Amino acid sequence: MGMRVTVRAIAEADFEQWLTLWAGYNRFYGRATMPEEITRTTWARFFDDAEPVHALVAERDGNLIGVTHYLFHRSTTMVERVCYLQDLFTEESARGAGVGRALIEAVYEEARRAGLGKVYWQTHETNATAMRLYDQVAERSGFVVYRKLV
Amino acid sequence: MGMRVTVRAIAEADFEQWLTLWAGYNRFYGRATMPEEITRTTWARFFDDAEPVHALVAERDGNLIGVTHYLFHRSTTMVERVCYLQDLFTEESARGAGVGRALIEAVYEEARRAGLGKVYWQTHETNATAMRLYDQVAERSGFVVYRKLV
Amino acid sequence: MGMRVTVRAIAEADFEQWLTLWAGYNRFYGRATMPEEITRTTWARFFDDAEPVHALVAERDGNLIGVTHYLFHRSTTMVERVCYLQDLFTEESARGAGVGRALIEAVYEEARRAGLGKVYWQTHETNATAMRLYDQVAERSGFVVYRKLV
Amino acid sequence: MGMRVTVRAIAEADFEQWLTLWAGYNRFYGRATMPEEITRTTWARFFDDAEPVHALVAERDGNLIGVTHYLFHRSTTMVERVCYLQDLFTEESARGAGVGRALIEAVYEEARRAGLGKVYWQTHETNATAMRLYDQVAERSGFVVYRKLV
Repeated sequence: MGMRVTVRAIAEADFEQWLTLWAGYNRFYGRATMPEEITRTTWARFFDDAEPVHALVAERDGNLIGVTHYLFHRSTTMVERVCYLQDLFTEESARGAGVGRALIEAVYEEARRAGLGKVYWQTHETNATAMRLYDQVAERSGFVVYRKLV
Repeated sequence: MGMRVTVRAIAEADFEQWLTLWAGYNRFYGRATMPEEITRTTWARFFDDAEPVHALVAERDGNLIGVTHYLFHRSTTMVERVCYLQDLFTEESARGAGVGRALIEAVYEEARRAGLGKVYWQTHETNATAMRLYDQVAERSGFVVYRKLV
Repeated sequence: MGMRVTVRAIAEADFEQWLTLWAGYNRFYGRATMPEEITRTTWARFFDDAEPVHALVAERDGNLIGVTHYLFHRSTTMVERVCYLQDLFTEESARGAGVGRALIEAVYEEARRAGLGKVYWQTHETNATAMRLYDQVAERSGFVVYRKLV
Repeated sequence: MGMRVTVRAIAEADFEQWLTLWAGYNRFYGRATMPEEITRTTWARFFDDAEPVHALVAERDGNLIGVTHYLFHRSTTMVERVCYLQDLFTEESARGAGVGRALIEAVYEEARRAGLGKVYWQTHETNATAMRLYDQVAERSGFVVYRKLV
């Protein structure tokens, strides 16, 4: 990654640029219609000290080129919480430059600082590009995800 | 499932029987050494109204034959929380009788009652037996889990 | 209290009427300028299952005539949380009819149902009218409140 | 306050000394019988990152001479949480040296760092000694506390 890329906590002033990255991310996952209420609520949670929902951004020359959202939640097999890295996105023009890896490693650091011992995330089994990176920085657990809308 | 099987919220008086199921579950996942502090802490959280960690048990003739632990946590793609069904275990002698399905469906009901819209869980990709049930009651998402101890 | 008064959990459809009560309450405490962001955020928290902030309303002939907001929070001297009844307001035309008492007693019931053992609130030392009621349904603790904007 | 007094976050290693201060504090308030489960639970919460319950200690020559417990909780009249300074205690031999004031001011600082705008606490109306300090560092609100065991 070029040395001009900085990873930092998100700030209120990032809203417009974050919105663009969030839209790109949702398009990638085929969610053309992320309701505005969810976008607004999630954004507000980043800045609510009582909420365990956080965001980091990657910035280059004053432009946001990547973002990750992560959250802490309970687990029955640990005393401390675990860290779920829910979203990770790098702008298309900035791919291959180590931005994704830098964001993941920054989440590791944030989890450690909060006293947590584990970070996990999910990726689609067809996402070979992402998995090339993930296989370098984490372990593929062998677990697959089932889900049910209730 | 025989009609004498009841699914209900866990109670303080279930401790000894729960401990046996919890040990069986951990053995199944090769965790011979679940630290006592974790077991004690997780148990206490089931009864702490401020904690989003819950347990349901399946009972037959006064004996606990199955257990599930589930917890609610935030998500960036929903306003409400999601429900993570973290642990599911049926005593060996009671398998094949619909206990697992009854527990899962009871978690669906609890999630709904709490106003949530989604339940998810993970299973190992080699667990064909479990997946025969899961394929009937939920959708295999195609997502796989990466993890990193930090 | 006339038998046509019902105390119930607040609902999304109550927004307009709640706003009127909330404005009346804030005027009573000399807060002419409750920022809209706070009003909006507090309202949203009533319906967020992850938030310990709740509201009950008193209804008569389809009209809201009273409201109370209460929240659960930790305490160092109890295992379970305590219940802080933060706001209580009865419309002027409905005073003296037992609405306030009914709302307080409904909060007691909600706290009990949540497994809590204590409800508390604050009132200004000059509010003799309110204290006549409070002395009947609770204990004046002898504690006074200090505060500091930081 | 002598310059050898340090205020810092509590640490696991402080347990024995904290227990002595906690016992002294409870005796002061006539609570001879603080149940061990509460003591143990509150202690554990200081070190649980998911809990909004915190402690600071005042140390002199390696000995703890004061302690404060504070917690963050929601409020209906603010977007951010408020800080409740629930417990404050200085060992008898160390009184009059500014330890209480240093602890209160350290809580102000922690609240600010967490993005909060208000710290409050309660004291008994007969505690004239404490109020001489409190009148210097905060505002007596004029509010009195009612409570009810439910």
